[in-house]
Amino acid sequence: MPYEARAGVVPVVIAAGFLGEWRIERIAPVRGESLPAARALRRLEGGLEDVADAAWILKGVSGHARYVRREEKAALDKIQPALGRAQADCAALIPIRKSDVWWALPQDERRTIIEERSHHIETGLRYLPAVARRLYHSRELGEPFDFLTWFEYGSADAAAFEDLVGRLRETPEWIYVEREVDIRLRRDASSNEDE
Amino acid sequence: MPYEARAGVVPVVIAAGFLGEWRIERIAPVRGESLPAARALRRLEGGLEDVADAAWILKGVSGHARYVRREEKAALDKIQPALGRAQADCAALIPIRKSDVWWALPQDERRTIIEERSHHIETGLRYLPAVARRLYHSRELGEPFDFLTWFEYGSADAAAFEDLVGRLRETPEWIYVEREVDIRLRRDASSNEDE
Repeated sequence: MPYEARAGVVPVVIAAGFLGEWRIERIAPVRGESLPAARALRRLEGGLEDVADAAWILKGVSGHARYVRREEKAALDKIQPALGRAQADCAALIPIRKSDVWWALPQDERRTIIEERSHHIETGLRYLPAVARRLYHSRELGEPFDFLTWFEYGSADAAAFEDLVGRLRETPEWIYVEREVDIRLRRDASSNEDE
Repeated sequence: MPYEARAGVVPVVIAAGFLGEWRIERIAPVRGESLPAARALRRLEGGLEDVADAAWILKGVSGHARYVRREEKAALDKIQPALGRAQADCAALIPIRKSDVWWALPQDERRTIIEERSHHIETGLRYLPAVARRLYHSRELGEPFDFLTWFEYGSADAAAFEDLVGRLRETPEWIYVEREVDIRLRRDASSNEDE
């Protein structure tokens, strides 16, 4: 399928296999089925083409914010760092699928669960700019996950990142998560950076 | 790209060309570039595969509601008719693209423009069940339009449909529409129905 570039819409292919700038340190199933073992992975932004010889591939599209309000968006835009910072030698890829019950909820109730009850946006803000993040949407692409969440941080902030992830998993929002895999990565010093 | 079926997520391919259960009566550009002329079109739900020998193809995915609240969703679910009714011999395909400014707005402001200022959901409800509708999202698929809106109605309700479309185009929401093509269709009595 040819992919026409649209402003603010960034397609990604995450390809795991033998090669990649991120060495896979562990793949842990949090809920539901895990993903196959692999040595390394690549995060390829700009298209949705398949990658030959990959152990597995996940696809997503980064786009407009689905839940944030004006003041939250302003706060995020102000403090959110770019990906690919030299000091960020750790990364995490956490693909997530939410339940049919979640997707059948109206917009206002999903927003209430995410923010007013789970403080997802507020919690995320507290860990910025230490943890750089990107959210890719996968559901509309017919993918096995609804989201691919991507995080980059320095070793010094590894404990803070565990804290962030642990807090989110204890929220009412996470009741609706039916599949989650936690993949931890380390930048491969021998590989060229792509950003 | 293989497409994994997810509950409530329905991919569609709309293929225009020589064959199809819907005869194209006219293709009119409302804003921006039009689409090439063709004799007929097909609405193929269930996958995103390309169709050989089509004059043009548009793709989208029907999924969860992005803006409706609990009470609006209940009202819609109660009154919204299915597609493919025998008496609905007219249809319209209106692909729409909104501007970058629209997509940069936070969720609460997009909701305010759509409903509190433009009464989009409320207006749509007033024309139910005469006009059956389906909304496909295309933006994340790298398509030239953000949405494919599809309507089916009987000849007796054609004036009501014009009224609905005319009202929506006068709303503050439509300021953000930068491309729109209005394609009117008539069920081809010589073709088999697909639903």
